[in-house]
Amino acid sequence: MKLLEKTLQQITSINKDIEAQARYRVDNLAKPVGSMGKLEDFFVQLAGIQGTMHPKVDKRAIVVLAADHGVTDEGIAASAKEVTMVQTINFARGVTGVCALAKQANARILPVDVGVAFDIADERVINRKIKYGTKNMAKGPAMPYDEAVKCLEIGIEMAHMLIDEGYNVLGTGEMGIGNTTPSAAIISVLGDFSPEETTGVGANLPLDKLANKVDVVKRSIEVNKPKADDAVDVLAKVGGYEIGGMAGVMLGCASRNVPVIVDGFISSAAALIAKSLNPLSAEYMIASHKSMEKGAKLASKSLGLTPVLDMDMRLGEGTGASLMFNILEAAIYMSEEMITFEEAAIAVV
Amino acid sequence: MKLLEKTLQQITSINKDIEAQARYRVDNLAKPVGSMGKLEDFFVQLAGIQGTMHPKVDKRAIVVLAADHGVTDEGIAASAKEVTMVQTINFARGVTGVCALAKQANARILPVDVGVAFDIADERVINRKIKYGTKNMAKGPAMPYDEAVKCLEIGIEMAHMLIDEGYNVLGTGEMGIGNTTPSAAIISVLGDFSPEETTGVGANLPLDKLANKVDVVKRSIEVNKPKADDAVDVLAKVGGYEIGGMAGVMLGCASRNVPVIVDGFISSAAALIAKSLNPLSAEYMIASHKSMEKGAKLASKSLGLTPVLDMDMRLGEGTGASLMFNILEAAIYMSEEMITFEEAAIAVV
Repeated sequence: MKLLEKTLQQITSINKDIEAQARYRVDNLAKPVGSMGKLEDFFVQLAGIQGTMHPKVDKRAIVVLAADHGVTDEGIAASAKEVTMVQTINFARGVTGVCALAKQANARILPVDVGVAFDIADERVINRKIKYGTKNMAKGPAMPYDEAVKCLEIGIEMAHMLIDEGYNVLGTGEMGIGNTTPSAAIISVLGDFSPEETTGVGANLPLDKLANKVDVVKRSIEVNKPKADDAVDVLAKVGGYEIGGMAGVMLGCASRNVPVIVDGFISSAAALIAKSLNPLSAEYMIASHKSMEKGAKLASKSLGLTPVLDMDMRLGEGTGASLMFNILEAAIYMSEEMITFEEAAIAVV
Repeated sequence: MKLLEKTLQQITSINKDIEAQARYRVDNLAKPVGSMGKLEDFFVQLAGIQGTMHPKVDKRAIVVLAADHGVTDEGIAASAKEVTMVQTINFARGVTGVCALAKQANARILPVDVGVAFDIADERVINRKIKYGTKNMAKGPAMPYDEAVKCLEIGIEMAHMLIDEGYNVLGTGEMGIGNTTPSAAIISVLGDFSPEETTGVGANLPLDKLANKVDVVKRSIEVNKPKADDAVDVLAKVGGYEIGGMAGVMLGCASRNVPVIVDGFISSAAALIAKSLNPLSAEYMIASHKSMEKGAKLASKSLGLTPVLDMDMRLGEGTGASLMFNILEAAIYMSEEMITFEEAAIAVV
């Protein structure tokens, strides 16, 4: 059996008994019921995911998947493809935005080339290049079906490798000039939204070029007719290698009872693919920040996730995910360090 | 010269030269301009406050001020005064909500009794009790004018003591059954909002008792006629000892170029007092979370602050403030670890 198929079959619902126990404990901590809001929900979810009242998020990594996009031929990006290559090397050098935040959070960055348009000379970047970028999806499928399966499987492998090394929480990140365009297309198809609703300016695309970008997303969908009930087909026709890789990381985490943090817009498109392939995978996902990118809010809604960080961020790379590690750990400390009403000797309020 | 007067005179604007330098650096980091959103603003503000391109937020403390309120006679709180006493001791024991989060963030908790209704036996609680709770503000002033000055000065002293010990970022927290009622009154007077707009259910007050709470806030303002242009008068007539203490901590930080984190609703009321006493003090304030308490949003607006955490929290104690320490540190790492466009050898986008 193939890795993707096997992984999808291994994903089960999170531990509902532990989840209920965790909710009971949280409700009995010495504070007004519900007053720690999302921290309570995070603890309950983490306990359910890891199947223990003492979950851990102290071994942290962010998988940063990098790839290029043929659709940049349509003038939908403000930067050149070279930037994908340069920044992918910069992940290995530890000098990008997500590297800085991950250093503060004591998280490892794992950069993976799944389809960068240039050869990457730096050996610290894991070379799993499928091709030198996707084809122009405005004119035909971005990639063949088997490559869509392949990038999903690379993501699964990366997640499993890290989990085997002891990592107990993963974040998803990406680099790929042009990738808000396929993300908008994926969110439109899987979330059933119009391209006008899902297409934004990405990384500072001039506003006067937005109409063309919307049109490119529309044409890509019209030309390829992706099947909304087959997420691999959607990924193949209007997706990208790094988007598939991120979806794979999410599936890999879900198959091994490890929480996975969704980052922003592109990560949400990947999460929709993962959820579409196995709805139970969404139980392992944790939202991070409210991306500024148009369509991000709709994507979160489709995922059933509520981002808690309102930071006006729109860099991607996994920057929002990285900020969540300490917040998730705070949720665990809440349960570990607080006493219950009984222990506190105060009446329930 | 008295401490309050002296402190108010010592507060200057933050360092505008360094602020401009910090903004220049942030704009030149290798990322789309503005794409790290609030992290960019935090770095710029921290640099301006501490007057250095290398600000630090690694020595962290939260001052938790505790006091009781005579206005609880009016049935505006779901819990009894004993809870203030018990929880104040629990701060010293390290077992409350803010203690748990502070432990994760490696922050010290400094509990201070400025007016708890019972004697506190635990020596780890700093005893600066002014009185055994305020008087019922629905019938007359909560405290005399000189006591309002006194609680402000206690807060200033606590801040200066911690800063002298090397703490470079402080958070504000509180415990005081009934204290959302004076906070609503303060925000109404200083922000010019109706009591209906500022009064919420606090710590799980049954909804059918909300109308009475609104009426109590109204009566407190009508009976006392606090002068909106004299924040000490407002604090004396419709405030509380711990609220004055928190405002004092903020002024103490501003007078020594130290950033101070505003927590939620009660902390915002205190911040309005500090800002009213010296508008420059607001330049040193950093908002944390969007409190669920009605009126919190209006208070933030009056302060000119934008909370970034959307956690559905409404516990108080300083819990929201505590979650900010690592985020502020991430903002500093952004500047310290990222390279500029020039260094990254990519074109400006």
